[in-house]
Amino acid sequence: MPKLDLALVPVKTGSIYPEPYAAMVKGRSSLRLGEAGGLTQFGVNLVTLEPGAMSSLRHWHRHEDEFVMITEGECVMVQDAGETLMRAGDCAAFPAGSTDGHHFLNRTDRPARFLVVGTKAPAEVATYSDVDLMVHIGGGAARFTYKDGSDWDGPR
Amino acid sequence: MPKLDLALVPVKTGSIYPEPYAAMVKGRSSLRLGEAGGLTQFGVNLVTLEPGAMSSLRHWHRHEDEFVMITEGECVMVQDAGETLMRAGDCAAFPAGSTDGHHFLNRTDRPARFLVVGTKAPAEVATYSDVDLMVHIGGGAARFTYKDGSDWDGPR
Repeated sequence: MPKLDLALVPVKTGSIYPEPYAAMVKGRSSLRLGEAGGLTQFGVNLVTLEPGAMSSLRHWHRHEDEFVMITEGECVMVQDAGETLMRAGDCAAFPAGSTDGHHFLNRTDRPARFLVVGTKAPAEVATYSDVDLMVHIGGGAARFTYKDGSDWDGPR
Repeated sequence: MPKLDLALVPVKTGSIYPEPYAAMVKGRSSLRLGEAGGLTQFGVNLVTLEPGAMSSLRHWHRHEDEFVMITEGECVMVQDAGETLMRAGDCAAFPAGSTDGHHFLNRTDRPARFLVVGTKAPAEVATYSDVDLMVHIGGGAARFTYKDGSDWDGPR
């Protein structure tokens, strides 16, 4: 039956970011609901941000559309132009190739949750707005570089 | 800013189904949130079912993954094996090509809402489980046929 038993979906913590960036998303966890339900064309994750946590480094996707709906609590969405308060039921869309990076911060004292959907493109490049970092994803591997394309070897 | 103002998103009613099937989804309306946000790779619709309404004919997709999260109220999900009660926060996934058709019914006395995500494949075929009907979508057009592939010309 395709109704998902969320209690059986593994809770994913941690990050593929190199340090010191991985430590910056401490307090974030997610349930990979789409994968749990056998979907392959797009990912659907239910993300929990503990008080003080951030969803990711601020970023944008070159090839993948992304959509977010806040499902519980509230978050601050940060973009180039500043901050937007997002409450349960609020939605945001991030078209592939739009260079206005985003992330979500939980500045409240209770957990916040959001559903995030993203295309699973054969290859993807994400660019991090506020640090000299990009990630190139393809063939099951992730390679981090500086924005000049050279291999990442520590913050600069 | 990509936070969507849901009050500005047009409310879509009606159906592309031929009669008598279009009348069966009376009481269903939706906000095309993904399109409102400029997304092209998958659709994201926030669907409202008034009391007594159904989401669609029971169907399955040949090429497109589909994902649903109930966001308000409760619905009955119907599949080959029977009915499953779905409450706010419950999720279901329908992988492309899985032939177990589904739809959602609101048997309560208040509106129910769900978020539904579906890939936008270049071409798609949906098959309706309980009636002799299929739809072939591509090139901006939808063609309804019987399950033997011949042009639809009334219920049989």
